[in-house]
Amino acid sequence: MHSEARTAEQRRKDTLARLENDVDAWVATADQEGGPYLMPLSFLWDGAGLLLSTAAGNPTARNLVASGTARLALGHTRDVVLIEGSVETLEQAEISPELGDAFAVKTGFDPRRLRGRYLYFRVRPRQVQAWREVNELEGRDLMRDGRWLVRE
Amino acid sequence: MHSEARTAEQRRKDTLARLENDVDAWVATADQEGGPYLMPLSFLWDGAGLLLSTAAGNPTARNLVASGTARLALGHTRDVVLIEGSVETLEQAEISPELGDAFAVKTGFDPRRLRGRYLYFRVRPRQVQAWREVNELEGRDLMRDGRWLVRE
Repeated sequence: MHSEARTAEQRRKDTLARLENDVDAWVATADQEGGPYLMPLSFLWDGAGLLLSTAAGNPTARNLVASGTARLALGHTRDVVLIEGSVETLEQAEISPELGDAFAVKTGFDPRRLRGRYLYFRVRPRQVQAWREVNELEGRDLMRDGRWLVRE
Repeated sequence: MHSEARTAEQRRKDTLARLENDVDAWVATADQEGGPYLMPLSFLWDGAGLLLSTAAGNPTARNLVASGTARLALGHTRDVVLIEGSVETLEQAEISPELGDAFAVKTGFDPRRLRGRYLYFRVRPRQVQAWREVNELEGRDLMRDGRWLVRE
């Protein structure tokens, strides 16, 4: 029923491919009263973090600004990449034109051209886990405290 | 690029089909300090709620017990069903044998046969939203305060 469990090296490679190529992530945040929120957002991976953007008034934006933390899922429920990260809030003026362009090309969505106040967020992974089925639950930790546990 | 936006009736029908047929949901919870958590869990829809189960010691279980609230996503990021619901915690003894069996058949996972303490949770939707692409953001609210906004 299951494929053989992937090695740590393969999981890291697959995870980096998802960061490069996937367009959307599930973004889980929480408000200060402990209310959870969940929303899909498109992202750009810049090698160190996932760049996101959403309207400043949205619950996800408010939670990211206030808490500075998020959990993201890439892939689907039987090929999971789970990321816990710290969040830096960036105004549009803090985004270089090149980065803004790269974000727009990757996501198909350019907050700089929209009415209303949009913020960018950079999520820097601190913890990364990856698994497919039950046989991969062991060994799912790929990054802790911002450091990959396996080398390239 | 986009298909035509679905009617509210079609979205409700599609959402109920997902509840009946999908096996996994993304489950977003939060701890009392405002820390978000995200985990895929299998579920059984019993017509009024989504039955979930996980080990009592897991962060998701602890958050569900403490907060009594969750946000769930079914589908994928371009065919989203988002559910906000209240959560009832159920000990194994509170689950009828028939319901326990139905859960095991649907999810392929029977917490009654596992070592360790597993809890069940029933998530009753209060708010349901469904959309595919940007053209479906309008009209995405299908349920508020536990009531469907559209009839069958």
